[in-house]
Parts: sequence; structure tokens; C-alpha cells
Amino acid sequence: MTTDTTVAIAYHSGYGHTAVLAEAVGDGVAEAGARTVPVPVDTITPEQWAALDAADAIVFGAPTYLGSASAAFHVFAESTSGRWAKRAWTGKVASGFTVSGSMSGDKLHTLQYFSIFAAQHGMHWVNLDLLPGWSASTASEHDLNRLGITLGTGAQTDTDRGPEEVSKADAQTAFHLGARVARVAAALTATPVASAVR
Amino acid sequence: MTTDTTVAIAYHSGYGHTAVLAEAVGDGVAEAGARTVPVPVDTITPEQWAALDAADAIVFGAPTYLGSASAAFHVFAESTSGRWAKRAWTGKVASGFTVSGSMSGDKLHTLQYFSIFAAQHGMHWVNLDLLPGWSASTASEHDLNRLGITLGTGAQTDTDRGPEEVSKADAQTAFHLGARVARVAAALTATPVASAVR
Amino acid sequence: MTTDTTVAIAYHSGYGHTAVLAEAVGDGVAEAGARTVPVPVDTITPEQWAALDAADAIVFGAPTYLGSASAAFHVFAESTSGRWAKRAWTGKVASGFTVSGSMSGDKLHTLQYFSIFAAQHGMHWVNLDLLPGWSASTASEHDLNRLGITLGTGAQTDTDRGPEEVSKADAQTAFHLGARVARVAAALTATPVASAVR
Amino acid sequence: MTTDTTVAIAYHSGYGHTAVLAEAVGDGVAEAGARTVPVPVDTITPEQWAALDAADAIVFGAPTYLGSASAAFHVFAESTSGRWAKRAWTGKVASGFTVSGSMSGDKLHTLQYFSIFAAQHGMHWVNLDLLPGWSASTASEHDLNRLGITLGTGAQTDTDRGPEEVSKADAQTAFHLGARVARVAAALTATPVASAVR
Repeated sequence: MTTDTTVAIAYHSGYGHTAVLAEAVGDGVAEAGARTVPVPVDTITPEQWAALDAADAIVFGAPTYLGSASAAFHVFAESTSGRWAKRAWTGKVASGFTVSGSMSGDKLHTLQYFSIFAAQHGMHWVNLDLLPGWSASTASEHDLNRLGITLGTGAQTDTDRGPEEVSKADAQTAFHLGARVARVAAALTATPVASAVR
Repeated sequence: MTTDTTVAIAYHSGYGHTAVLAEAVGDGVAEAGARTVPVPVDTITPEQWAALDAADAIVFGAPTYLGSASAAFHVFAESTSGRWAKRAWTGKVASGFTVSGSMSGDKLHTLQYFSIFAAQHGMHWVNLDLLPGWSASTASEHDLNRLGITLGTGAQTDTDRGPEEVSKADAQTAFHLGARVARVAAALTATPVASAVR
Repeated sequence: MTTDTTVAIAYHSGYGHTAVLAEAVGDGVAEAGARTVPVPVDTITPEQWAALDAADAIVFGAPTYLGSASAAFHVFAESTSGRWAKRAWTGKVASGFTVSGSMSGDKLHTLQYFSIFAAQHGMHWVNLDLLPGWSASTASEHDLNRLGITLGTGAQTDTDRGPEEVSKADAQTAFHLGARVARVAAALTATPVASAVR
Repeated sequence: MTTDTTVAIAYHSGYGHTAVLAEAVGDGVAEAGARTVPVPVDTITPEQWAALDAADAIVFGAPTYLGSASAAFHVFAESTSGRWAKRAWTGKVASGFTVSGSMSGDKLHTLQYFSIFAAQHGMHWVNLDLLPGWSASTASEHDLNRLGITLGTGAQTDTDRGPEEVSKADAQTAFHLGARVARVAAALTATPVASAVR
């Protein structure tokens, strides 16, 4: 399947782990036949702003630092206020991903933040849709959604490990999210009804 | 426009205010040409369970009591665990609404709960997409989204006022949400691509 | 150290895992020299309601089902509305714990719910105060706070494992929380200034 | 009552409204007999960092922009990571306040963010403890907690109104929060037991 759908990935990576996940999301988008545009938000260019504006979907990504997205992501988000007032991103599809050094806890708060940021912009939020990857009988670190996240996706990487050590399971989960976002965005843009809600 | 789209409204009403909002959501669904099925979850029947399973979208509604949805809604939600395990509601569209006696604060937490419940089920979340209804020059209690909610919608009604005194602005905002959910659901069900992500 | 401080533990346990954590919280309370009163909220008696009312602190506990506390806990919470209106629990210390089958994700939402429920009652919220228990060099499943939760504490237990298999690390983390809550409650009740804020 | 207690107010003000609230919080702190130290975080000095480190309590404040605290606050928060690793703020009392142009909704998310940031640092969170300020019979814009917020406090000011038009009710609610935080901090620092939990 190939579509005209474009999925932008607006992310900030502090030490490279988020960039690895952004690439996995992009691979998933491509697998679903859509075009992907990576946008590192701390060095965003006018062309990249235009790409966000033209995209059918935007996936947000940032590391979780002290319980929220990195400050660099927040600086980017705040600079979208003109677009918010003009409803420039209304009806686009959105989702999000994050990474931290620990298993649980406050990564959910970063995903909640992304979902509320998307709500402010009137975007539609796509969830991960994978059961938790555990099972007593097949216990494995290699399962999709090993962390049991639902609102988007996330990764856990020890803080003294480099980006190349992002777990394969977490990257594959990010890939799944990218493909899913692309398919929903393609469906929404494929019909005249869809444009009515944009 | 008429579509084959069906939007179920799964709600619990304690004193009637939520039921008024549910009706307004349903009117918005009908305005968008879709079919609406109201489901009071505290007296749900097998036929109504089947209607939820068959619906293209489900809008969740409950009053906010002490910072969350009413207990009756939570009892309903917990009883969907078999459907969760079978991924019965994956790919449906979801949104939510709530009401409380005060302007602000913890209604957002109820909407966050609805959005996470939807995420657990792999549903797609549709936001309100209305700027806050304030303006110094046109200050009015009658504006759409007068409370400035984004993740869904909500109402404020003094606790000693009856259901007939739900504000017109709040009811119209619920109407807007219903129409929007119906349009997104119709777009997602209109294409074969959509069924691929169901 | 022995104090006159009493810490109640208001919990619902579906399959026994939460009860194991409640016992660990209680052991921590005792270690700090305070008295502990376990209150299973689904079978709460008038005497146990009186114990909650008399306690210096209440720790809330429930499993996370489909992204929130179990419905039985919500039924209990809703039945505190009379106490809420009379501000019966104002100034008490509060915290919370939860358990689910997966590592991450939506357990935080249950803890957020507990913290907002406490806020509704005007209680003071005590956090876990433990760094995440990870470390690449000492990687272990036995570390305190192995899940990296901050707002309270939690456990992960495979869903087909019985209560006796709650991890020792998670139980010890719950013990830490109980001791911490008891010490803060003792400090707040030890001075006349404290009673001024009750 | 006079105490040795010090309450720092770490805030970012974009257009002056948050500064007005910060001053009201400080007035409440003074009313309770404690010392207050305002710290505008976007121009924080080494002396002000030292004041935060020495304070018994820190109240966080920022406007809500697009669903979260202003980016300037997030830049400040991220720069506390060294203090987080050293547990420099453990056992301090915390609370928060925010302001936005609309009544409801996403101000709660900013307060949730502040509470999770405090949890990361192992601080104790003090809630507002005021019933919502509504009443059908006495309906008034001048009531304490007119917005019905519980996790901290907040204000609503039309976006085209200047800081001098922050509502008196909102400022008095912020005053109440400051006094309450000061009293709890004083109680916690008044006893040797308290220092055990620091």
C-alpha cells in the first residue's frame, strides 16, 4: 500500500535515545506506505515548520526528565501558540513517545502532556493498541509493549547506556506506533468526509 | 449527509444533568447524519452491550464526584475487561464529557480517565476542538466552550439546580462534540484503509 | 521511637496482591513506631469508618484495572462525600499504592487519582522519595523502587502469579512508604502548630 | 505567631498575572508568621538558588500555556536535576498555582505537573483545602476558590486584561494557599521527628 499520507515526527533528543525511537517510528510509518518527515524541534527550520503544517499527522517525542517532557520540547510547544489561535493543526492525527531510565511511573505523565497538547490543537489522538507484553509462561524482555504503556509508547534505557542500547522490544513497539498512526491518518484523509472534519 | 455510522453514548447520570448532556451529544450525532444509541451504563442490557460492540464510536459520560467519574461508571468500565482482553473495541472512536458543580479543576481528571480507558481499549480519541469561549469584549456565559475544556467537554451546574438548568452553552458544546465524533467516525469507516486499522 | 500516631490503610484487594502490599505498608508504619489500622474498603464496618476518621494518616491502595483503581475502591471513595462536605479528613496525611500486571504506564494514573481524591479532602500528600532502583552496574530486580515510581508506590506481578509472589523489592518499597508516612504524620501531630492546620 | 519558617515562591510570570498571584501567596505566608522569598525563575541568581535550597517550603507558580506550565518554568525545573540526584529538596513542603484565560480544564494539568515535579524531589504536597466557592443562593464571583480547584490554586483572567485585573477572589485564594503552606511547613520543622523525615 502506498498513500499520499505524510507523518511528521516532532521530537527532541537529549542524548540520542529519543532519536533512535523517532527513527523506529519513522520506519513504521514507511512500512505502512506513508511518507515520514523527522523534525528535531530544537533546531527546527522554516521548511520544517512548513512540513509540520502540511503533515496529516504529527507524532511528538521527548525524553522524560523529572516527570515531564524535556524543556527543549516545551520551548517548541509554546512557540506553536500562533498556530493554536489560528487552529492550524485542527484535525491532524497525533500520538507520542518518550524514554526514561526507569521502568514506570512518570513516563505516563509525559504522554498525558502530549495528549493534552494535541487536544489544545484539536488533533485526534491515536493510542498504541497493544496488550502489555508480559506473560508468566513466556516471560521475555523482547515482547512488544514490554512496559505496558497504552497512551502512546515509551522506552526504558539505563542512563549510562548509549543510544545503540535502546532495547529492540522498545524500538519495535515504536515501529508499531508509527505504522498505526500512518494507517489512521491515511484513512482520515482518504475520504471527503474526512476533510469536512479537518 | 447521512451515513451508516453509529455512535453509542455510554453514560451514568446521578441526578439527571449528565443525561441532559448525553441527549445533547446525541443530537449532535444526528445532526451529522449518524445514528445514536444512548446506553445508561448502570442499567445496561445485553442488547445495549451488543450495541456498544457494534458501534463505530463510543462517547463516555459521567458526573465528576470527588475528582473522578461516578462509581457506577467505574463499575461498568471494570466489567469491560473481557472485551479488553479480546480487543473487542480496538479502532473505535472515543470521546467523553462530564459535569460538576464547580467551574474548573477536577473535571479534567475525569476526562483524562476516559482517555486512558479508551487507550486501554485501543480506541482513537477525538478532542473538542473549540477555542475557549471567553473574550473580554464579548464576555458571555453563552459562548461555546465557556469553561475552556479541550480533551472532551463538560458542564458546570450549581448543585442545587435541577437538570433543566444545565446551561445552554454547555449543552451546545456537547452537541458540537457529538457532531465531531460522528464525522470522524464516518470518515474512518468510509474507507478500506480504515478497516485495516480496526 | 513510639508515637501516638495512627496510620489507617484503606485498600481494596481483588486477588490478594494489594493485601500483601497493604501488610507491607503496615509493617513500615509499625517500624516507625506508629499504630496501623488495615481497612478493607469493600467490607468496611462502622468501627473501621471511625478508625479512618480518627487516624492521623490514611494510605489508599487498590489494584489498577483498565487504567484506574478498582471499582470497589471507587464505590468506597464516593461514599465519603458526606465527610468531604464536612471537611472531616482535612489536614490528615495521605499517600497511595497500587499493583498491576505490567511494568509501567497506567499505574501512575491510579496514583494521580488517589492524590486528587486526597486533595478533594484537603489532606497532605506524602511522596515515596526514593530514586529509581536501577543502575547498569548493579542491575537487579531486588532494588527498592525498581519500577521508578514517585507519587506513591506500586508493584508489578504477573497476572497468573499468586499473592505470595509479589516481589520482595516491591514489598520493601511499600514498607518504606509506610514508615515515611508514619514519620510525617507523627511530626505534624507533635506540635500545636500542626493542630492549627488540621 | 512568628516562626523561623521560610517559604520560597519559585515562579515564572509571562505578562504579570502570575507575579500578582505570587505576591498574594507571599502575603499569606507572612500572615502565617513565616518569611517569604520570591524567586522569579527566569532570572534566578546564585543567591536565589541558595534561598530555594534553604527554604522549608517551595511554592511553584507559572501560567498555563497550551496545557502546561510556561516553557521558562520547564527550563528552570530541568536545571534542578543535580539537586534531584543529591536529594537536596527531600522533605520540603511544596504546592503550586497557575493562571490562564479560561475557567477550567487544563490548569489542572499544570498543577498535576507541579505535584509530580515535587514527587520527583521527594517533597510533601499541600493541597488548597477549600470547598468550591459556589452556591446557588449566594452566587458570587467573589468567593474563595470560585473555580473549584483542589490540588493547589489558580486564577482566570481574560487574556486582554492586565495584571491589575486579577480577580480579588483568586488573589485571596492564593493568599489562603500561602498561609496554609507556611503553617504546615512550620509544623514539620518544629519537631525533631520532622527532621528525621527530611
